Parts: sequence; C-alpha cells; structure tokens
Amino acid sequence: MALIVQKYGGTSVGTIERIKAVADRVVDTAKNGDQVVVVVSAMSGETDKLIGLAQKISASPNEREMDMLLSSGERVTSALTAMAVEALGYRARSMTGRQAGIITDTVHTKARIERISGERIRKALHEGYVVVIAGFQGVTEGETDVTTLGRGGSDLSAVAVAAAINADICEIYTDVDGVYTTDPNIVPEARKLRKISYEEMLELASLGAKVLQTRSVEFAMKYNVPVVVRSSFNNNPGTLVVQEEKDMENVVVSGVAYDKNQAKITIVDVPDKPGIAAKLFDVIASSNIVVDMIVQNVSSDGKSADISFTVPKTDSKRAVEVTGKIAAELGAKRVDLREDISKVSIVGVGMRTHSGVASKMFQTLASHGINIVMISTSEIKVSCVIDLKFTELAVRVLHAAFGLAEAAGV
Amino acid sequence: MALIVQKYGGTSVGTIERIKAVADRVVDTAKNGDQVVVVVSAMSGETDKLIGLAQKISASPNEREMDMLLSSGERVTSALTAMAVEALGYRARSMTGRQAGIITDTVHTKARIERISGERIRKALHEGYVVVIAGFQGVTEGETDVTTLGRGGSDLSAVAVAAAINADICEIYTDVDGVYTTDPNIVPEARKLRKISYEEMLELASLGAKVLQTRSVEFAMKYNVPVVVRSSFNNNPGTLVVQEEKDMENVVVSGVAYDKNQAKITIVDVPDKPGIAAKLFDVIASSNIVVDMIVQNVSSDGKSADISFTVPKTDSKRAVEVTGKIAAELGAKRVDLREDISKVSIVGVGMRTHSGVASKMFQTLASHGINIVMISTSEIKVSCVIDLKFTELAVRVLHAAFGLAEAAGV
Repeated sequence: MALIVQKYGGTSVGTIERIKAVADRVVDTAKNGDQVVVVVSAMSGETDKLIGLAQKISASPNEREMDMLLSSGERVTSALTAMAVEALGYRARSMTGRQAGIITDTVHTKARIERISGERIRKALHEGYVVVIAGFQGVTEGETDVTTLGRGGSDLSAVAVAAAINADICEIYTDVDGVYTTDPNIVPEARKLRKISYEEMLELASLGAKVLQTRSVEFAMKYNVPVVVRSSFNNNPGTLVVQEEKDMENVVVSGVAYDKNQAKITIVDVPDKPGIAAKLFDVIASSNIVVDMIVQNVSSDGKSADISFTVPKTDSKRAVEVTGKIAAELGAKRVDLREDISKVSIVGVGMRTHSGVASKMFQTLASHGINIVMISTSEIKVSCVIDLKFTELAVRVLHAAFGLAEAAGV
Repeated sequence: MALIVQKYGGTSVGTIERIKAVADRVVDTAKNGDQVVVVVSAMSGETDKLIGLAQKISASPNEREMDMLLSSGERVTSALTAMAVEALGYRARSMTGRQAGIITDTVHTKARIERISGERIRKALHEGYVVVIAGFQGVTEGETDVTTLGRGGSDLSAVAVAAAINADICEIYTDVDGVYTTDPNIVPEARKLRKISYEEMLELASLGAKVLQTRSVEFAMKYNVPVVVRSSFNNNPGTLVVQEEKDMENVVVSGVAYDKNQAKITIVDVPDKPGIAAKLFDVIASSNIVVDMIVQNVSSDGKSADISFTVPKTDSKRAVEVTGKIAAELGAKRVDLREDISKVSIVGVGMRTHSGVASKMFQTLASHGINIVMISTSEIKVSCVIDLKFTELAVRVLHAAFGLAEAAGV
C-alpha cells in the first residue's frame, strides 16, 4: 500500500465533466489499495475572474482581502471533487489549507509555507477517507488569516503536503505529458524525459518551462519528495523528478529552455569606482525588481565601464526609471533599454563532468549567424541572451547539436 | 457613538456597482462616528449556481461538502465589500464565520448557532476597522468544519452578531422598503409599518412574508435586538422590529399574510380510538415533514373521525404516501389530498385585548362568498384555509375590513 499525493491543475478540473474524470482516476488509485491525498487548483479561469472583480473595485486592492477572495476558488473545487469521489461510492473529505494544517508566514498573496501539521490529513486517511485539499492556500500562525502562495502555488501545496505526510510520491497532473527536452511547439522532435534531477528541473522551471512552479521544485529537492509530472487526459507515464542519480551524468544536456520575457538595460560609461555596482543593484532590489543576468565591461582605458543587466520585460519601464536616477548620481553617460532580446539556455547535470559544453553552444549559435549579447553560466546551465527574432532558430539548432531528439541523428 | 450591524442581502450586493453603493452607505454611517459591522450574503444567483454545479455531480451531495462549497459565495462578497470600503479611504477587514467566532452545532446545511465569541470583531472595531462578515456560515466547536445556517441564514448571522457584541441596532437591508400590512402586489393600498413587535413579525415571517428569516426573528426576540428592515436602494426609514410596546395593542390587526404553498390531507373514517392522532403524527414527523394545521372531527355516531392536516405543497406526495400506510394500519377508509388551497391569516398583538376579531374575519370572508376549509388560531393570529382561487380576494377584503390601508376608508 502506497501513500500518494495527486495534484490536479485548473485545466484538469475546468468543468464538471473533468472533475468527474479526476474522481475516476482517484478512485482507480484507491482501488489499488493506495491511500490518496488530492490537491486541487481553482477551475480554470476562476481565479482570473475573481481578480477581475477586485480590479473593478480598486486598482490596488488590500492584499489580505485578495487572499480571502482568491482562496474561495480552490474551496469550490475541493468540495466538488470530494462530492464526485463520493458519487463513485468512496468516502472523501475536502479540506481547506487551514484544515489541512498548512501554516504560512503573513506575507499575503505570496506567503511562504512555514510548516504543515498534517495531523488531520493522517487521521482522515486512517479513517478511510480520500482527502481533497484546496491548493494555493494556507493560514497564518494561530489560524488567524487566510493566505495564498502565489501563482502556481497549488504545486507547492502538493509537494509540501507530500513531504509532511511522508508520501511515497507526489503526482502533478497537468495538460501536458511531462517535461520535454524543449518546447515541442518549436521543435516537433522534442522528446519527453523519463527522468530528470531536481537541479535540472529547477533550472528549467526558472527558465520559463511552466510545467512546475519553481518553489515547489525547491521544496521537493529540500525534502527529497519524488515528483511525477504527467497528463490528466491520458495514461502516459510522465516524467519523474528525483534526486540526481549516477547515470544522469552520462547525459550532458537534458534540455533547451528559452525565455522571451527579458529586457536588457545598459548603463553606459559609468566612472569605474569601487561600490558602484553594489549601489546600483541595491536601489533596484529595493524597488522589488528581480535582476537576472549581470555583465560589466571595463573600457580599454580602465576609467569607465558599461554595466548591463536583464530584468523581466514587464518590469522594464520601472527599471529604466529607477536606473536613470541612480545613473545620473553616478555620473554615467546614459541608460539604454533593449526589449528585442530573449534568453536561450541549455541545462544538464552532466556539464559538471563534461568539458566543452559552453563552447559547443557558442559555436553552434555562431555557425547559424546568431550573435550572443550576454552570457551567464552556472554549474549545470549555460544561458545566452540573443536577438529575439532568432529564438526559435537557436532552440532548434541547439536541440539538434546536443542530440536531444527522439530518434538519434534527427 | 452607536454600534451598528448592517446586513446586505444578495440583491444588494448583486453587482460590483451595488457593492460600491453598499460601501458608500457603510462609509456614510462610519462618518457619523458610528462603529459598523457589515454582514453580507452571496452575490445574487451565486448560491444557486454552486448548487447547480453540485447537482451535476450528485443527486444527494454530501452535506459537509455542500457547506464547504456554498460558504465560498459569502467569502467572495465579504472580501469585495471590504475592498470597496478601503477604496473609499476607510479601513475594513473581512471575516469568515469562523474568524468572527460564530460557533454552530454540526448539523450541516442547517446548523444552529451555539455561541458567538465576538472577541475578534470587538478588537477590530476598537482598532478602527469596519468589519465585514461573511453571512450564512459558521464553524463547528474546535473550529473543525465549516457549516451553513440554511436559506436566509445571513439574517440570522447579522442578528446573532448584533446580540453578541451588544449592538445598538441591527439593520437588515433588502430590496423592499420594509414590512407591509400585506403584499403590495395584491393590495396597492398596503401600508408600510413603522413599527412591529417581534411576535407579530414572527407570525408574518412564518406565514410566508419573506422579508426576514423566521429564526433570525426568534433570535432577535430572545436577545432583545432591535431590528430595522429597510431598502438598500433608497433612504426611506424602513420598519422597526422591537419588543411589544404599550401602544401596539391599540392596533388590533397589523397585517394580512397568505401562503399558497399548502396542501391538505384528510384521513377519512378513522375508528375513533385513543392514541390514533399521536401514532399518525409521530410517523409523519419522523419522515421530516412539517405539519402546520390539524383538525379532527368526530362523526355524529361517535364511532369514527376525519383527521385533516396541512403540509407544504412540496412535501404533499411524500406525506400522502406515509399517511396511506399508517391509515391502512389504523383501519381508515381512505386518504384524500387537496392541493388547490391556500392559507390566509391576520396577525396582531391587539387581538389579545380585543374580542370579536376572529368572527369579524369569518364574517368578512363569508360575505364575499369565500368558504372556510380549516381554521387555526393563536394568541395573536387567526388563520383560515380557503380555496386557492380566492386568495387574492380574501387578502383584499380582510385588508379593507380591518382598516389597514394607507388612507382611512380606502
């Protein structure tokens, strides 16, 4: 008998018919003698509808109230899913984040889970219930206020619950079959990965492969929760996300990711004095803008430098404003903004033990006439900022160059 | 400085524009220096939509899950209303039934309030917040499960909260101007009552005047909470529901009510033996059918009796079934059902001190050719079951006979 957590996203519970299909799958699992905890998102479109209502009332609605509002969507799905399981003759009990014992900090709309008691979940399982938990939500210490965990937070709910009750596996059901070597919309030969390490998944998630929420992967890695990403619309096996295994290093590159939501800001001719970068990025950070890549070039005479960095395109206007002010103070010449860029990355734990991966990437891009604007590397990742228009081409040629396609030689 | 509870029904918060209008009214009250606690229903149509979803899943959905599902509607409105008040520059905080400390028994979908701690409400008021409570819901002891209070339960939430925090008044905002001497759709001259006693309101509510939920009136009477029923769409003063006052007895009849949801069941020729009625109504009660009026006539030879009683039309088929079985056991001749009837009632605390009220009612009906099928009386009420087709006529002539119209002599 296994203890299984199953998380179903908004599309998977988007209609009454789909909720019934979810119940079928849950009951099939229970029939095997397994204990099942289900975590559900709001029905697709529901959260956006509620946000729309709030925005009609206020441009910047109170965040505590936003949480009270948004958390209702998952409650509805959890109750409906529990009813659907009961309609099939099995006992089910819905639980809110509070009832499931998911305690968070007090940062409304993007709360962090502090602990999960899991006591009530275990008790209900022991009594023979399928437990259906409303995802995306928790409650502050003392069960005072309702909080939500931010976009994609139901993934985190599922992984955190799986960790708390020591589940054998956490299955994330979504509308794709698993994690692919790259976006199949760009490269039809993209191959579904059978297995991937937490570290690689983390890089892929943060690089814009939207299959799993980044924080949920961090959590799974921290507590060593085996995660499977699979489709709720078929019975294909999906992709297993686990601790790095020995044989994984044989594969040099596991996937190619891209991110079009990037803008590059350059401060031109900053006098090259110590502490300038610190001052600049301190100001930007305090404006709550997340900086991704940073490159600094000192001019040949050693007197001034250009500092470039990337931010999400959605924050670019604000970042330019903030940067403009500090640039003037620092005595820089001007601030440039480029929005026609994207970031293409290769990811793989095998890079640690294989040399020449980065240079192969650069050569591949160069041989197709793709200019590299910025470069950033980590232990298991190489990212290049390139012209936006070359994104798809770059993904295709890199996917081929590292032999990621389904059939060898494609 | 007064402490005021304001309850807004589903129509009053049915759209974003109306929620903003509610916020305007709340802020106007707060501007007077009064402390305001708001209780809101779900946006009109929302609860029925959720019930519809549940029914697509199961003919008899689990009641605990129904409560989890339905309670989400009021949460949404409470958050949106709090946002709307904040958008006007006032501080507001929404609270679920649990957060407001509304503790109920465990009878899901029709829970009874056991106590209200009110502590958190008082604290928030003290800190200068407008408190916006999600109506219709509570939580079981130990804050275990969410419960709902049954149809119209938000009225009860409001009155119970008003009692718990010792509010100066509980204002029930709805889509009518107050309590009328009778249904203005039938009698255009119907007059809005300035004041009415709890006892009278209770009779009117249970007789089908749907302005206030019956249990909320019982609660207001028990804890002596002054209630005002008024419209959220204008500034008319409404109707005050209070303890009986001396001058109220001068008015013999306060209102005329009617109820078309009535069916009459007759068991013909039951052998007249002791304990028969007890046996019959015991069986019916255990089928959860509420019996209203009961009449028993012993035949002239004293050997057999006819027993007639009324039940809600919606339960009539089931009542006939149950009655048929027990009638056979008792040796009765047959069971008759009449559904083409209605109940017309006059209500007034003045009846206690004025004689001849009932006979005036009977004479008035007789003089218009309306036959009386059954009669039932209480201290402050006389009810007659009549032919359904005479309902409107009976209401009109009784309203006139007891001088209830706006202008004298109408």
